[in-house]
Amino acid sequence: VLLYDNPVSGNCFKVRLLLAHLGIPYERRFVDVIDRSDPRESLASLNPARALPTLVLDDGRPLAESNAILWYFGEGTRFVPFEHFERTKVLQWQFFEQYELLPSIGIRRWLVTYSGWPRERYESRLPEYTRRGKKALAALEEGLEDRDWLVGESFSIADITLYAYTHAANEAEIPLEPYENIRAWLDRVAAEPGHVPIDAES
Amino acid sequence: VLLYDNPVSGNCFKVRLLLAHLGIPYERRFVDVIDRSDPRESLASLNPARALPTLVLDDGRPLAESNAILWYFGEGTRFVPFEHFERTKVLQWQFFEQYELLPSIGIRRWLVTYSGWPRERYESRLPEYTRRGKKALAALEEGLEDRDWLVGESFSIADITLYAYTHAANEAEIPLEPYENIRAWLDRVAAEPGHVPIDAES
Repeated sequence: VLLYDNPVSGNCFKVRLLLAHLGIPYERRFVDVIDRSDPRESLASLNPARALPTLVLDDGRPLAESNAILWYFGEGTRFVPFEHFERTKVLQWQFFEQYELLPSIGIRRWLVTYSGWPRERYESRLPEYTRRGKKALAALEEGLEDRDWLVGESFSIADITLYAYTHAANEAEIPLEPYENIRAWLDRVAAEPGHVPIDAES
Repeated sequence: VLLYDNPVSGNCFKVRLLLAHLGIPYERRFVDVIDRSDPRESLASLNPARALPTLVLDDGRPLAESNAILWYFGEGTRFVPFEHFERTKVLQWQFFEQYELLPSIGIRRWLVTYSGWPRERYESRLPEYTRRGKKALAALEEGLEDRDWLVGESFSIADITLYAYTHAANEAEIPLEPYENIRAWLDRVAAEPGHVPIDAES
């Protein structure tokens, strides 16, 4: 398995985290996420969206979109539920993540911590990202009420998906102090046997 | 089945379109998407994100996120492939839609056609939505090269997902003339037996 990857990307981290839990070896190929002048034509034949992560199976077939890749490798393992309604709930949380959490906390994190841009270039956009990010965290906090895990009774790819950007909210300058359920759940995810941090060498 | 719904929402339309293809009856309950002062507390107990569509099964269990709902009802029917790699490709297109197509064409369509706001309120943001929308359409156009359908050899929930906002690109003021593959594919989707338009009464 070959992973087109960037070390700071939360979307890439999801894939690395699941592959670590599963003990699946892979090769990492670095793609820049700061220099946007790179048209990423190296990815064009593999993924029309030219986004990270993009992954190439050993037989040459390409896959993309972090949450879809989690399903590809997670299916049939203890990280994906068997029951139909629970499987739908995993998807519900993953689509929520792509539409609510990533475009707020994920983008804010990239701008303030990784873009290298002067703050005045994006400062006027920050309040909107803050507002949407807090709304997403409030929904996640509610979803974790009286629960150890997002879906069912055990750690699943839904937890991996939501963990990736939530655990890095400090890099987005959004404090997690108000979110008691989220903080306890982040600790549970990180305590799972086989866990690796975002900056782990593979 | 009870669907919390709005007639102009592309996300709600996806669910209505699949339910029409499957011949599953449902009740529609109107939720305003223009008046954002509505805190949507009616949805709070059903969906922490308080977003549309939210659906309640006959046994009272709630589901949310349009693409997750498509999986719930599509699984086991001819609209969802059986083969593992093809299933992952369906997800790949659906996550692409939520992260690339909906936040550009979907939001631009809402602003210019449905928000009721004076244009000067959002005009400065339009070029960014146009740029991202065209990038998303270019990826979709590439994905449809030499293909009748997005995944495999037949119409699937991936096509339903991408159809919803793409077919309404004119309401986002993004012309589809440059996208030959997309235009032919939109016609194929609309020609499927059982198709209903976005403004159909159910």
